[in-house]
Amino acid sequence: MKDMKLSRRQALVASAALGGAASALASREAQAAAPVHKWESSYSGGGTSAARAPGLPGRDYQPTVTPGGATLDWKIVDGVKVYHLVAEEVDHEFAPGLRARCWGYNGRVHGPTIEAVEGDRVRVYVTNKLPAPTTVHWHGVFLPNGMDGVGGLNQRSIAPGETFRYEWTFKQSGTFMYHSHHDEMTQMALGMLGMIVVHPRPAPQGHRVDRDFVIMLSEWKIVPGARRPDPNEMTDFNVLTMNAKAYPGTAPLVCRTGERVRIRFGNLSAMDHHPIHLHGYYWKVVATDGGRLPVSAQWSETTVLVPTGSTRDVEFVADAPGDWAMHCHMTHHVMNQMGHDLPNMIGVDARKVGALGGRVVRGYMPMGERGMGDMAEMGMPVPKNSIPMVGAKGPFGDITMGGMFTIVKVRDEDIGDGNQDPGWYKHPPGTVAALARKEDMARDGIQA
Amino acid sequence: MKDMKLSRRQALVASAALGGAASALASREAQAAAPVHKWESSYSGGGTSAARAPGLPGRDYQPTVTPGGATLDWKIVDGVKVYHLVAEEVDHEFAPGLRARCWGYNGRVHGPTIEAVEGDRVRVYVTNKLPAPTTVHWHGVFLPNGMDGVGGLNQRSIAPGETFRYEWTFKQSGTFMYHSHHDEMTQMALGMLGMIVVHPRPAPQGHRVDRDFVIMLSEWKIVPGARRPDPNEMTDFNVLTMNAKAYPGTAPLVCRTGERVRIRFGNLSAMDHHPIHLHGYYWKVVATDGGRLPVSAQWSETTVLVPTGSTRDVEFVADAPGDWAMHCHMTHHVMNQMGHDLPNMIGVDARKVGALGGRVVRGYMPMGERGMGDMAEMGMPVPKNSIPMVGAKGPFGDITMGGMFTIVKVRDEDIGDGNQDPGWYKHPPGTVAALARKEDMARDGIQA
Amino acid sequence: MKDMKLSRRQALVASAALGGAASALASREAQAAAPVHKWESSYSGGGTSAARAPGLPGRDYQPTVTPGGATLDWKIVDGVKVYHLVAEEVDHEFAPGLRARCWGYNGRVHGPTIEAVEGDRVRVYVTNKLPAPTTVHWHGVFLPNGMDGVGGLNQRSIAPGETFRYEWTFKQSGTFMYHSHHDEMTQMALGMLGMIVVHPRPAPQGHRVDRDFVIMLSEWKIVPGARRPDPNEMTDFNVLTMNAKAYPGTAPLVCRTGERVRIRFGNLSAMDHHPIHLHGYYWKVVATDGGRLPVSAQWSETTVLVPTGSTRDVEFVADAPGDWAMHCHMTHHVMNQMGHDLPNMIGVDARKVGALGGRVVRGYMPMGERGMGDMAEMGMPVPKNSIPMVGAKGPFGDITMGGMFTIVKVRDEDIGDGNQDPGWYKHPPGTVAALARKEDMARDGIQA
Repeated sequence: MKDMKLSRRQALVASAALGGAASALASREAQAAAPVHKWESSYSGGGTSAARAPGLPGRDYQPTVTPGGATLDWKIVDGVKVYHLVAEEVDHEFAPGLRARCWGYNGRVHGPTIEAVEGDRVRVYVTNKLPAPTTVHWHGVFLPNGMDGVGGLNQRSIAPGETFRYEWTFKQSGTFMYHSHHDEMTQMALGMLGMIVVHPRPAPQGHRVDRDFVIMLSEWKIVPGARRPDPNEMTDFNVLTMNAKAYPGTAPLVCRTGERVRIRFGNLSAMDHHPIHLHGYYWKVVATDGGRLPVSAQWSETTVLVPTGSTRDVEFVADAPGDWAMHCHMTHHVMNQMGHDLPNMIGVDARKVGALGGRVVRGYMPMGERGMGDMAEMGMPVPKNSIPMVGAKGPFGDITMGGMFTIVKVRDEDIGDGNQDPGWYKHPPGTVAALARKEDMARDGIQA
Repeated sequence: MKDMKLSRRQALVASAALGGAASALASREAQAAAPVHKWESSYSGGGTSAARAPGLPGRDYQPTVTPGGATLDWKIVDGVKVYHLVAEEVDHEFAPGLRARCWGYNGRVHGPTIEAVEGDRVRVYVTNKLPAPTTVHWHGVFLPNGMDGVGGLNQRSIAPGETFRYEWTFKQSGTFMYHSHHDEMTQMALGMLGMIVVHPRPAPQGHRVDRDFVIMLSEWKIVPGARRPDPNEMTDFNVLTMNAKAYPGTAPLVCRTGERVRIRFGNLSAMDHHPIHLHGYYWKVVATDGGRLPVSAQWSETTVLVPTGSTRDVEFVADAPGDWAMHCHMTHHVMNQMGHDLPNMIGVDARKVGALGGRVVRGYMPMGERGMGDMAEMGMPVPKNSIPMVGAKGPFGDITMGGMFTIVKVRDEDIGDGNQDPGWYKHPPGTVAALARKEDMARDGIQA
Repeated sequence: MKDMKLSRRQALVASAALGGAASALASREAQAAAPVHKWESSYSGGGTSAARAPGLPGRDYQPTVTPGGATLDWKIVDGVKVYHLVAEEVDHEFAPGLRARCWGYNGRVHGPTIEAVEGDRVRVYVTNKLPAPTTVHWHGVFLPNGMDGVGGLNQRSIAPGETFRYEWTFKQSGTFMYHSHHDEMTQMALGMLGMIVVHPRPAPQGHRVDRDFVIMLSEWKIVPGARRPDPNEMTDFNVLTMNAKAYPGTAPLVCRTGERVRIRFGNLSAMDHHPIHLHGYYWKVVATDGGRLPVSAQWSETTVLVPTGSTRDVEFVADAPGDWAMHCHMTHHVMNQMGHDLPNMIGVDARKVGALGGRVVRGYMPMGERGMGDMAEMGMPVPKNSIPMVGAKGPFGDITMGGMFTIVKVRDEDIGDGNQDPGWYKHPPGTVAALARKEDMARDGIQA
């Protein structure tokens, strides 16, 4: 079998031709060192122990979508799926107007999502083009101890210029993550992270979803005007991201009314456990990076807490059309850079305290006397290479949100492949909150 | 049917008279835009889709109690429950000695609890008497997208002086919340939040509770001596509240031995997930804002973590009489203003470092050399309009707690309607930790 | 029956001799004041209500191990288990090179683990040798209200020099905690905490574990060079510990391939909910301080979030040999003192900004231009009595981790009683990530 470089679309086409010819390559050492985990009969995530023919999109799984991000290409060589991660410096745009020099993989921040199938034998090459040593840890994945990626403990770190080889068989399915595990406080804060999705084989009956989204949560400190994130920040993060984008830079999640939707959240923020809230719905928490929850243990929430160092899969039926906000519920995490560290101006006439401006970045107006909504409305001036704390133009005026915020767009109409923003929702007549009519207030006895 | 303004007590009386005469008003748009959510057969929170006659206290539900707070009045007009929220500035007392100018609803901080019944058609008028635009988001509630309340996205914001109309049918039951969703970082930090309780219809068999408490958790930064909260604070909150009261300003939860108790916690703190601990008991976590947990998924805890942007219902049987502490387990959250940002004086003779006092608020004595207990004992002087970090007089001396702390008072005796503080618990002889007797120590071989 | 002072090993020997002779001592007040909790039939943690003969190690339970810590001695007097805690100042070593004057119990920080058996009647003497009043609260334990330990509320506080007596019957089993509840922000921050393990009686069938570890998580602020922790710190903790030790001071968890392992985590950190991640495995969350989760409610995770004021028991089968990292996943919590509050030097030539050194502790080199890995490699100079942010020598070079980090060492070989560090894992050939061979890269078409 010759090498094949497959994009996801090419893979869909190729799957019929490939069939099951690739040979099982489970090596002795992998079987010996990472047997299937068992705990009485109650553990469900054990899965297969031997490598199988490479799983193919369309045939063995439905590819996930990483909104605003990408999926890592792979090829098959002698029955092994081959991936290549290149750790390197990346000039990354968080939102229109805010760029920074970060560290990522393959020209992206964060790295592209690694997608595979239970039973796949995989080989991952990691080339280090950074000025510092690095490693990659495969968070949640069962593998030989020497492939686990903790620098100094499980392997020597990868020196600048070197290429390392990692190899294992996926013995489990689920949502996992990868990240640097050498000087990780620094390297993760600069962006060296990504998601891993392993699809179950065979595909489970009765759990097929129509949309399968992948979202990595992370947090950054980028001093307004600075060209690099500050990895030393411990508490006061000011750029909060979904797939490394801050609203209004985030991509919407588009689906059609009635579709079944899964969102796979991962969180590799430095310090925070993010509570992600979806408006208008509840969802079921169905899996962690330890595998799928038994149905008896699943519960519903409108807000899923994703602890840092964890993944959470949620599922829901998109049966209510509209533009539904989805965001971290920590109020400072739906603000951007300029919404932090302001003097308190509530109830103060800003025109009389011009001197205060000197306390913050030059050229930046302090918080308004009536709050921050003023800012969005006035088109607040901001320093070069920074973004105001809030503000996107919405269908009803300024949306005073930023950071870890996006919109789930549910439409009755055809949405094609779901990768196009369908614009704003068109509300049925009479379903939008609006000025109360005088006759209604009179009938209802409301004194305004 | 004529308009009726019903307090909770009047409603109890009126319920027999009203009967089921109010007509079902499910409008076309509500049915079209917010159908019942389903996920195979495993979702349980879907509920009814059509409006029913207004649910009445006593007949259809047992009213909840919001300790230290209030429940919003409503009236019935043509079969619709009509509520009115007035957003306005409020001079609020957090605890004796600490007042601040906040933003709330109907003269209260937080807003009163909205109580309804599954199937109720509701109309909520919101009048904006603030100097800034605002909106109201109904957190967790299924409703038409245009009623969801995100300013700019789902509606234009309500300008000062305007009254808006929101309307929907409750298709679900549970514990939800409401809050501003325009410039929310500012407006929520100033107090614009409240709880929503929707009772199931029909009332479930076997889950009746004797006490049903509602507690909203929130956090504030009020610089000692300042007259307004600072909405820009991101990490160092110094006033931690249950229903907007800081201990010793919080109301106790009073119940009788053997009663079944539910507490519905909501958390709309800016940044923190509060772990609420009840002494002497464990409770079961039985519901979130996504609805009731299946019995198979319920678990017991002594401390329930309430992520911000979430609700948690817990239930227990009050079978152990006494005065049981209930509080956030983050140690800085059971302190008040003056317990924060102090220099470390452990092991230091404060008399020799008078100069240190200049580093903190004038007139405020620094932390004692033996800790903070000294402060309570000495009646620490504090700046005008502020409260010491700890300190209430208890039955055994000073209680060195503040902030997000209250007491669950379980009594064998009759407690009436439960709204009166029964005073301190009277312990059976020999059941209080006390000085060890010499003969006991001798018998047990204890060398002190 | 005469007094017997039993260490854990002595107790194992003694158990056969003692038999069931000790009389049941359930006192009237304990039965009256702390009856078994019930909630319909679904609560499982109620347990026995009457005292039974003292439970003995080897016969009634398998003792737990507190890595890096200790278990409290006890003796039996007239059928009652007698314990003695002495609150006192302790000179404690967090890691080689970092000592501080803390407050603990019995010469230890934290206090030793209290171990008992369901049905045990226990008497705990608490002697206060501190300069400040104190109390002890028994977190999660059902007991008479007057034994609950909240100073001022449930008892008067224990004055310096006094010895108090607490007494109750354990009516439940599980993992609990004890800590000061007088001026708790100060006293807990100085170290006054410990774990409590109560074994079920009779021992449950089918849940026997081979290793049963106990780990208390906590957090400290110790200014580099200072001799005492600062109890006033609210957010910027810089010494993060497992059983009061920071890596590389932490003890490894040693077990043999195939053994069933339980880890009982408790968290009494001032402010943080720690997400503890185990590499190479998932574990099941099986219990909280509210008792064991029903099997139907258990789920698997690779990272368990332990909210402060909570305990979490996790279980797994150690079926993958190796040296597996286990740590808090908050990246600043796997750093030590000197990894905090540094200026951002990424991409900056440190030789040109020597002046920056003046901004941090004298003699301490700022963060390297390539991150912090440099520091470990260069043997960064640190102030007297402090530890660098990272750094232990591993089998493959420097391990750039610190703080709340340890290693689970799983070995195919005999590990004796498990209390000896077996050294580094010896990897099977070909199972360690390493430099990719040129022929492999050529075959796989990898361009480095």
